[in-house]
Amino acid sequence: MTTTPSPITARPPLTLRMHPDDNVAIVANDGGLPAGTVLPEGVPGAGLVLIDRVPQGHKVALVDLAEGEVVRRYDVPIGYALKAIPAGSWVHERLLQMPAARALEGLPMATVKAAELPPLTGRTFQGYRNADGSVGTRNILAITTTVQCVAGVVAQAVARIKAELLPHYPNVDDVIGLEHSYGCGVAIDAPDAVIPIRTLKHISLNPNFGGEVMVVSLGCEKLQPDRLLPPGSFPIQDERDATLGPETVCLQDDEHVGFASMLEHILATARPHLARLDARRRETVPASELVVGVQCGGSDAFSGVTANPAVGFCADLLVRAGATVMFSENTEVRDGVDQLTRRAASPEVAEAIVHELGWYDRYLDRGRVDRSANTTPGNKAGGLSNITEKAMGSIIKSGSSAISHVLSPGEKLRRDQRGLVYAATPASDFICGTLQLAAGMNLHVFTTGRGTPYGLAECPVIKVATRSDLARRWHDLMDVNAGRIADGEQTIEEAGWALFELMLDVASGRKTWAERHQLHNALVLFNPAPVT
Amino acid sequence: MTTTPSPITARPPLTLRMHPDDNVAIVANDGGLPAGTVLPEGVPGAGLVLIDRVPQGHKVALVDLAEGEVVRRYDVPIGYALKAIPAGSWVHERLLQMPAARALEGLPMATVKAAELPPLTGRTFQGYRNADGSVGTRNILAITTTVQCVAGVVAQAVARIKAELLPHYPNVDDVIGLEHSYGCGVAIDAPDAVIPIRTLKHISLNPNFGGEVMVVSLGCEKLQPDRLLPPGSFPIQDERDATLGPETVCLQDDEHVGFASMLEHILATARPHLARLDARRRETVPASELVVGVQCGGSDAFSGVTANPAVGFCADLLVRAGATVMFSENTEVRDGVDQLTRRAASPEVAEAIVHELGWYDRYLDRGRVDRSANTTPGNKAGGLSNITEKAMGSIIKSGSSAISHVLSPGEKLRRDQRGLVYAATPASDFICGTLQLAAGMNLHVFTTGRGTPYGLAECPVIKVATRSDLARRWHDLMDVNAGRIADGEQTIEEAGWALFELMLDVASGRKTWAERHQLHNALVLFNPAPVT
Ligand SMILES: [Ca+2]
Ligand SMILES: [Ca+2]
Ligand SMILES: [Ca+2]
Ligand SMILES: [Ca+2]
Ligand SMILES: [Ca+2]
Repeated sequence: MTTTPSPITARPPLTLRMHPDDNVAIVANDGGLPAGTVLPEGVPGAGLVLIDRVPQGHKVALVDLAEGEVVRRYDVPIGYALKAIPAGSWVHERLLQMPAARALEGLPMATVKAAELPPLTGRTFQGYRNADGSVGTRNILAITTTVQCVAGVVAQAVARIKAELLPHYPNVDDVIGLEHSYGCGVAIDAPDAVIPIRTLKHISLNPNFGGEVMVVSLGCEKLQPDRLLPPGSFPIQDERDATLGPETVCLQDDEHVGFASMLEHILATARPHLARLDARRRETVPASELVVGVQCGGSDAFSGVTANPAVGFCADLLVRAGATVMFSENTEVRDGVDQLTRRAASPEVAEAIVHELGWYDRYLDRGRVDRSANTTPGNKAGGLSNITEKAMGSIIKSGSSAISHVLSPGEKLRRDQRGLVYAATPASDFICGTLQLAAGMNLHVFTTGRGTPYGLAECPVIKVATRSDLARRWHDLMDVNAGRIADGEQTIEEAGWALFELMLDVASGRKTWAERHQLHNALVLFNPAPVT
Repeated sequence: MTTTPSPITARPPLTLRMHPDDNVAIVANDGGLPAGTVLPEGVPGAGLVLIDRVPQGHKVALVDLAEGEVVRRYDVPIGYALKAIPAGSWVHERLLQMPAARALEGLPMATVKAAELPPLTGRTFQGYRNADGSVGTRNILAITTTVQCVAGVVAQAVARIKAELLPHYPNVDDVIGLEHSYGCGVAIDAPDAVIPIRTLKHISLNPNFGGEVMVVSLGCEKLQPDRLLPPGSFPIQDERDATLGPETVCLQDDEHVGFASMLEHILATARPHLARLDARRRETVPASELVVGVQCGGSDAFSGVTANPAVGFCADLLVRAGATVMFSENTEVRDGVDQLTRRAASPEVAEAIVHELGWYDRYLDRGRVDRSANTTPGNKAGGLSNITEKAMGSIIKSGSSAISHVLSPGEKLRRDQRGLVYAATPASDFICGTLQLAAGMNLHVFTTGRGTPYGLAECPVIKVATRSDLARRWHDLMDVNAGRIADGEQTIEEAGWALFELMLDVASGRKTWAERHQLHNALVLFNPAPVT
């Protein structure tokens, strides 16, 4: 079966190889390449004739592969040939045996001293400086909730605040309710319950919310307001006694007679917070105040070729500028754990990486699965044969600098934890994003090959398409087209610099497509503990 | 510390005992009773002088209790005195040792033949008869989603459908997106993943949605539309080939160029579904078509004295009318498992109960907790000392009839599964409600002592207050005041009959308070499998 290239994609056959020692390359052309195609001069595999049709993003064998022979991509084994594969064949997942998981013992621990990157100075953005020194990229009133019980009331209150109050506070970007499924009906004293609880606490303290903490509680829930935000866990903005817990509207309080009184109380409580937020102005701050969370979702074979390498280059720029970059997604780094431990800034950091991934191995094992549960039908359709191949393409978005810190799920970065950070999270887009919000993310970068309309109400999300055809079709959903790299129109370095400039613009207030359309996904908590 | 009764609560001291053999009673009076109160003639403990102040809903010792002596309520041991407790004392949770969990071996299996209740005939409501014979109490277009990725787009589409299309289809009650956190980033092949998957499938088929299944999918997610709703899993309403899967808008389809095209496609797909729903009319159907899910949340000591016994009486009326009543909440029946197995209609049903509760014991044990993780600060403040006492008050809402069927989490009732059903679910209000929706619930009854503004978009929720002071304060949130039972103004039987009549009215279209205020809580899935 062959496809006729459309005029827009009528480019010469193009293959991309990630490392000179790789014995496979991927097909870059829209629509793939038909059997019989001769690979032209100047591309990997020049002179080869394709034996099969090879879909876009899928692998072609550059040499004859014997049964059992290692298949290399990113200069690592991504599998072993289940039978002989002649050069020019389509190397799909049914022809490969996945490598065994890398053991967590005997890893190289902080053995590579990452090249010291030259500082990048003088880069700034316009942000909202908070009392604790952190910087918001948006100026949002977030209403913390202790329990799902109050979600319906808070949704009504937020709608009224937006309609009735927000027009009087034009410098406030948005009002959101931090709705979630936790807070009651859960084993709150289980050892693992620490994760969802600290996640909710730390999201309330995200720099985009200006330190204006207000809470709506039911009253009888397990996650009481002072358990969520114990006195002293955040600076009080107003004249109230600093030993008090968070300012809380408790729906079960005797003062509430009728539904309207609950709404009125929430609106009245919101007013001074809105007034303080409204009095703030953006100011020039150094790029070092960026706290960027990067992740990928809906990945294809181009994720690891275009978008993720560009993000990786940009991650290095951010580190050079003194900023913080978090990468995450446990099941997508697990197969490259040795790359992470090797790059750790110290043996302690390497051990923290091993600790997090070992914990996650055991978590998956309790549910009788392993890291291979990560891959999706879309990954495979997009050319990613297995989790090993996917992992190599995922890790590349962390760039090349040393890993300086490790966060457990739901932990918050300290102000002195700069540079490249491994924030250990599930790869689930929503859980990863939620945990990066808790860590203190003020800007989110999301790469996608298959396409997703992902967005967060809490933080701007820059979406990077891995392919030009996706970027063309989703022209008002994708903020960046990294497919230009595969098209030969842009280098990885150019794309990385352009992304860096866009980050500064978005951090300064330029709206992403998700913000313009108000596309918001839910906060999804990582709760490894039981419900009751 | 004593409180002065306010005029509205200036009633003579009133205590309530659940069984003649109980050695504790609870204080019914608003504000509780001060130390020194003499219990008057005609109430349990007449002539006793209270040694402590006893808060409302809390227990008073009716006799001197020796250290180690059993404390009985509902004629079962709810604990053992940790020290001597003189008659007239406040018996709070710090004075009681909780009984050990009832073992799941050696239980009485279907040993009691429940009294055959006389049929209740001729009772009807006005419902929407579906093609499969089931009956909706509402006429709702529900848009199924396969994955959280599409939630932002579906929210925008639903807002536009409501604004632009719904006015043209006046017989359609509502349009809702079935948003959830599942679908990708999950271990979809884990053994326990069957639970969230079948839950989502069965919610799509809830009788309140008229069999009009439409799906919005991303495209690359793990939970593909034909995995969620395999061909043949539901009857196709239109002329399409019955071997096709669900009608699906896939956002990644090539036809979608730009965000607006996604919205237009969803709106266009919704139109014929809306037209078919709009052509339906309510018709007179027998009360046997009710599928009622009952649960309690925000419980206090009155839950098991007023609201839950009234619901239990009403459950018997429903069974007599040939209807279906589900009760649930594993951790709240676990301590009364022998009461359930004894009442099972057959040894097979008793074994199914043991199987479900044993599975749940092991689930909790994997997370290093047990059923005592159920109780909340609000429960204890409300007078419930521990899970044993809470369980007795919770089970009572199942009434007295034989348990005829057992459902595993996320399973759907067959049309021939009538009568009293144990639907095994966590006690979490949102997870229980979500699983009862999947089971086919068309009417929800929720009792609460502390108060919750709970509501579901998918199904009307009748909220029953356990206390008059809550019903007075939350006058436009509580649909029924069962506190009148404690006030001596109504018998349990009268309250049960009134609830039955209200059920028929609400099933016929009368709006509950949650519907009037549009208070909707989230669908919360029970996913015991890992995320990835
Ligand atoms: Ca503004
Ligand atoms: Ca990823
Ligand atoms: Ca992800
Ligand atoms: Ca309950
Ligand atoms: Ca409940």
